[in-house]
Amino acid sequence: MPFTLHPRLEADSIFVGQLRLCQLRLINDSRYPWLLLVPAHPDLVEITDLEPEDYQQLWEEVRLVSKGLQSWCQPDKLNVATLGNLVPQLHLHVIARFKTDATWPGPVWGQGEAVAYTEKELDSLVAELRELFFQ
Amino acid sequence: MPFTLHPRLEADSIFVGQLRLCQLRLINDSRYPWLLLVPAHPDLVEITDLEPEDYQQLWEEVRLVSKGLQSWCQPDKLNVATLGNLVPQLHLHVIARFKTDATWPGPVWGQGEAVAYTEKELDSLVAELRELFFQ
Repeated sequence: MPFTLHPRLEADSIFVGQLRLCQLRLINDSRYPWLLLVPAHPDLVEITDLEPEDYQQLWEEVRLVSKGLQSWCQPDKLNVATLGNLVPQLHLHVIARFKTDATWPGPVWGQGEAVAYTEKELDSLVAELRELFFQ
Repeated sequence: MPFTLHPRLEADSIFVGQLRLCQLRLINDSRYPWLLLVPAHPDLVEITDLEPEDYQQLWEEVRLVSKGLQSWCQPDKLNVATLGNLVPQLHLHVIARFKTDATWPGPVWGQGEAVAYTEKELDSLVAELRELFFQ
């Protein structure tokens, strides 16, 4: 069975690039630099569903993305999480948080409404992220 | 410098046992089976502060605890997260979520008030968790 991205993740985020295991995506919410890692395997729900090698690879990609975000925007804190209460397909959030952001110090999920980027902002941001992670 | 647990984590959770890297603790909130992993090293804030070997060990312990919780209480979903917006000391949440729990499908943080276990409940729960993870 081929990998198909959950429609909710497809709608809420933009493809940045394909890492060895995961799709790297940008959540379309300009309130936070918010990245998503989605292991490109069908039928994964929990991190415990991953084979040991993929499990390790997942966290290596989380580390890569975390370090990239830190060097890119110097957040006050990283928030790293996998919840999946609404969208069962396994996905990991890596979010750069700032003491000045919309919901600090609370979590970002289910707080207020996403503020979409403009098309121009998105183009430039995705280009920057591709340079950061894929060059 | 020796490792000292942050007073907020100390107040909110109970020691279950020491894994190779992390203290395993139970959050004193009977609304959820909610475990905490705290790497027993001073001065860690972000997962990226961990040396590669400890980083890998952390996620191995997350896997162990996740699988343990799954076999112990068959949750509808695991929520695994490191936020640290309020308590900077690096700590990981592994929470067994149920569709019937107090804040499903929302995240657990900052939602309502913790409902402490009775002393009797705590004793029996900690004993059960020690058997699950340390025997």
